[in-house]
Amino acid sequence: VSLGAGGLVASLRPGATHVSSSTISVALSERLAAAHAAAGQRYAAAPVFGRPDAAAAAKLFVVAAGGPQVLEPLLPLFAAIGLRTFVVSEQPHTANLVKLSGNFLIASVIESVGEAVALVAKAGVDRSQYVDILTSTLFAAPAYQTYGGLIARQEFEPAGFAARLGLKDIRLVLAAAEQLQVPLPVASLLRDRLLTLVATGGGDLDWSALATLADRDAGAGSDHPA
Amino acid sequence: VSLGAGGLVASLRPGATHVSSSTISVALSERLAAAHAAAGQRYAAAPVFGRPDAAAAAKLFVVAAGGPQVLEPLLPLFAAIGLRTFVVSEQPHTANLVKLSGNFLIASVIESVGEAVALVAKAGVDRSQYVDILTSTLFAAPAYQTYGGLIARQEFEPAGFAARLGLKDIRLVLAAAEQLQVPLPVASLLRDRLLTLVATGGGDLDWSALATLADRDAGAGSDHPA
Repeated sequence: VSLGAGGLVASLRPGATHVSSSTISVALSERLAAAHAAAGQRYAAAPVFGRPDAAAAAKLFVVAAGGPQVLEPLLPLFAAIGLRTFVVSEQPHTANLVKLSGNFLIASVIESVGEAVALVAKAGVDRSQYVDILTSTLFAAPAYQTYGGLIARQEFEPAGFAARLGLKDIRLVLAAAEQLQVPLPVASLLRDRLLTLVATGGGDLDWSALATLADRDAGAGSDHPA
Repeated sequence: VSLGAGGLVASLRPGATHVSSSTISVALSERLAAAHAAAGQRYAAAPVFGRPDAAAAAKLFVVAAGGPQVLEPLLPLFAAIGLRTFVVSEQPHTANLVKLSGNFLIASVIESVGEAVALVAKAGVDRSQYVDILTSTLFAAPAYQTYGGLIARQEFEPAGFAARLGLKDIRLVLAAAEQLQVPLPVASLLRDRLLTLVATGGGDLDWSALATLADRDAGAGSDHPA
């Protein structure tokens, strides 16, 4: 809805600014930057970190990228929605890369915690107690609390973020990494795991359902009672 | 120094209790439990989570496993060194498994953050700012603060925990996982990555030096200027 007839580029006046907060590909962000520049318009990327409750409380973290003259008038806007704004680059697509890399790290948390839970649960440790130990100590962070909790409770519906969307974001991370020539072994593994989840009927589950694969592979999944 | 002539099992009186807080293999912990039982002694495993400063401040987290009658008299001892004690099982070796799984999760953090930093750094993002973004948001946890900081500063000496010790712990996790028949794809990948680091001369570096592999593979390492 940005490029093409009736899109933002065609609709905006010259000199107008388009601030994109969507999680889009690095390549699309580059195309948008070029299209807006050609139309005499301004473009900035400002994806945010934070869940809906953080947004409601104006406690988002804004990752912004764009030219200084484009970002300058936007800073009060960012301050109104967020706790803090990080300006990472003058090139808008860099902010999209940072956002996508964050989703890659969340998927890494889900997969590794899923593996660890499958391991200790098969040894008889209570899943919830285990996640409680993790999040009381070295992993006392929202990513582990949120996803560890879903994994411990095996609560994969309704999806907060669906597995097929997670797969899309990992695909976008890998595409950007290929363009920059940065091999990412864990991201490649996550792509295969998410593909497996989607291929076996889990595409609409929350992406934390990745954790079911480790149980299933261990012959101990809820689908395959040991 | 526990089994064999002059070891703990041979030296302790019948009825005495051996509390092991070392990060040992699940198999060794099982052998210790059997040897102490045969000698009429008591054995509990109580590894801790927490760095040296937490130990000094008596703020460790104790993960304990053993028979109820063995653990009962030990609880005041655990309370004296730790903030909280988690009793995870009656079988001592289970506590060792939980401890090893925590080290597996730390290695996962190091590898995934290393990959993400290599990616965004090649796109021009400042490493320290990037880690600051992570640890201000979804990853505000000690594991990310400690290891993210080391990775951002590329500060791998002196080693807080050497790569060759990290490799040993991943080997112990994989051995326990093989015994329990739990495939762990990320742990298998981490074994290869740690082997690569050790094989290329990094065995004595801190295990956060795993992050140098992602830079090196991207042709952007400090060893191989782009």
